[in-house]
Amino acid sequence: MRAAQYEGNGHIGVVERDPAEPGAGEVRIAVAYTGICGTDLHVLHGNMDSRVSVPQSIGHEMSGVIDAVGDGVDGLAAGQPVTVMPLDWCGECPACLAGNQHVCQRLTFVGIDTPGSLQEQWIVPASTVVPLPESLSLRHAALIEPLAVACHDVARSRLAAGEVAVVIGGGPIGQLISLVAQAQGATVLLIEPNAERRAFAAAHGASVVDPLSEDAAAIVEQATGGAGADVVFEVAGVAATALGSVDYARVRGRVVIVAIHAQPVPMNLHRVFWRELEIIGTRVYERPDFERAIQLLERGAIPAEDIITDTIPLDQTLDAFHQLEQGGAMKLLVDVRKADR
Amino acid sequence: MRAAQYEGNGHIGVVERDPAEPGAGEVRIAVAYTGICGTDLHVLHGNMDSRVSVPQSIGHEMSGVIDAVGDGVDGLAAGQPVTVMPLDWCGECPACLAGNQHVCQRLTFVGIDTPGSLQEQWIVPASTVVPLPESLSLRHAALIEPLAVACHDVARSRLAAGEVAVVIGGGPIGQLISLVAQAQGATVLLIEPNAERRAFAAAHGASVVDPLSEDAAAIVEQATGGAGADVVFEVAGVAATALGSVDYARVRGRVVIVAIHAQPVPMNLHRVFWRELEIIGTRVYERPDFERAIQLLERGAIPAEDIITDTIPLDQTLDAFHQLEQGGAMKLLVDVRKADR
Ligand SMILES: [Zn+2]
Ligand SMILES: [Zn+2]
Ligand SMILES: [Zn+2]
Ligand SMILES: [Zn+2]
Repeated sequence: MRAAQYEGNGHIGVVERDPAEPGAGEVRIAVAYTGICGTDLHVLHGNMDSRVSVPQSIGHEMSGVIDAVGDGVDGLAAGQPVTVMPLDWCGECPACLAGNQHVCQRLTFVGIDTPGSLQEQWIVPASTVVPLPESLSLRHAALIEPLAVACHDVARSRLAAGEVAVVIGGGPIGQLISLVAQAQGATVLLIEPNAERRAFAAAHGASVVDPLSEDAAAIVEQATGGAGADVVFEVAGVAATALGSVDYARVRGRVVIVAIHAQPVPMNLHRVFWRELEIIGTRVYERPDFERAIQLLERGAIPAEDIITDTIPLDQTLDAFHQLEQGGAMKLLVDVRKADR
Repeated sequence: MRAAQYEGNGHIGVVERDPAEPGAGEVRIAVAYTGICGTDLHVLHGNMDSRVSVPQSIGHEMSGVIDAVGDGVDGLAAGQPVTVMPLDWCGECPACLAGNQHVCQRLTFVGIDTPGSLQEQWIVPASTVVPLPESLSLRHAALIEPLAVACHDVARSRLAAGEVAVVIGGGPIGQLISLVAQAQGATVLLIEPNAERRAFAAAHGASVVDPLSEDAAAIVEQATGGAGADVVFEVAGVAATALGSVDYARVRGRVVIVAIHAQPVPMNLHRVFWRELEIIGTRVYERPDFERAIQLLERGAIPAEDIITDTIPLDQTLDAFHQLEQGGAMKLLVDVRKADR
């Protein structure tokens, strides 16, 4: 079988490997598509070498069909279309015992801490496999994982129908949050300096604000009758947007920190106090977020074809990474079954 | 009548004034006791001159007896023992209309934005008056306002019986939070460098940690079986304690920012993300917090006599401020009915 593998320091090679058999409790999937995300780019640049075993296939946003099932696996069979919720938890730590397995204190992220789906045959724990409805195309199903991230972020925000959400940052996750929030009946204002990203959001139902030429806080205040937004999603991940995020929130509003801020950043705790705000952390997803993502795609609430900028054959995986890096692309899929164009 | 009044720049004078009559919708209270707090110290030092009309009586933690009632006031009568919830809201802003009157966007804080209770006869809006049970002494009733702050902080945290709370800072509010949390069946670990304050907390049921000589995070982790605390109250108000506050919290724990941080402070948003924490803002109180505070004092759950360090006659009000400033005192009450020792 063919596999694209991260070989350290910006290198991805495509190699031929012998397929392995799934062990007890494991499932082997013939991978169809694998999406590439910002985390994969971090891996490519060596920022996560302490977690990755070089050389290693990465990738965790995928769809495929089960082609072999190990001993002791119930309810899954060869031929089933599936995706994977790439979390493997210990089941024994305080977080797991409290029912928060997705933020297990010893969480294994499949596709980073263990091999990923940029290979024709991928072996994963059966517990991570999520069966798909036949009506959903494998192409669209590769969007389930990032869409589940957005579903989780929105769930954490407790966003209700009729509420106003501000999304700071119009990259792929910001756009998906905007779509999920609207699918739940919320009104979305998306703040993004890049004109193409603003156009994408505007074409898909959001009001947009250019923070470089407009007074975003004044616009949010006016749009909400002086109240402020019910929910703010900070997805841009820069210190200035984190600091400013609380300025958009109404009294008792919720500010969800979606972007990863590796270093401590100044936060306006006076505003948090003055308006009794909540700042909410959010990480990955839970099973209901995958189910919600599948439902949204199935009923056409997510414009999957607009989100998928391009589909690239496996041998050109590194090109896909470079294209993503240049910006402009919303979501790039690698067609793992196709060697070349 | 006699009144202590802030006269600007660290000065408090005691003067004789003609008593006024309560207007429509107002109540006049013969003040018994007025407690002094950190906010009053800020006023004394001129930090709140933009809100105070110099000269002005300040003070907002009080008890007394109604001695006159204005037109149109129902359900209140001369002779009733009362305290005051010193918030006067507009009723029309988005926060008020959403039911969050206590964080009204045009809130008047009685005793700062309008005259306070360091005077023998104090006129307030009838809506702020909270009747007291006869069984509660006026001396103890002067603790209701700061205790209501603690009740509000604990309510915002959603602390449940059996949970573990970390309180960072053993000043008056930190101690009251510790007591309220314990009254709700929680276990409290209080982190405080001052030995006297640690001793106070330890004598009243909390486990105590000296952050200067002990590894507070390791102690919290050990005390919680590796989980971390359910709730963390940041009451110390310095940048380092805000930054470290998230380190004590379990996965999905709540971090309540009680102290006022006037300037933005670095926050570890990576930890907020990694553990899916919530950072919760809290400000003043609501009516149920006053009711809860009264109940706690009435049933003896709060060691009022231990909290009241000293009672000082009205003419020595400035001495009381100076004594509070020196630290060591938990709560100082001014006996407004008593001119001199
Ligand atoms: Zn991803
Ligand atoms: Zn675990
Ligand atoms: Zn006070
Ligand atoms: Zn109001």
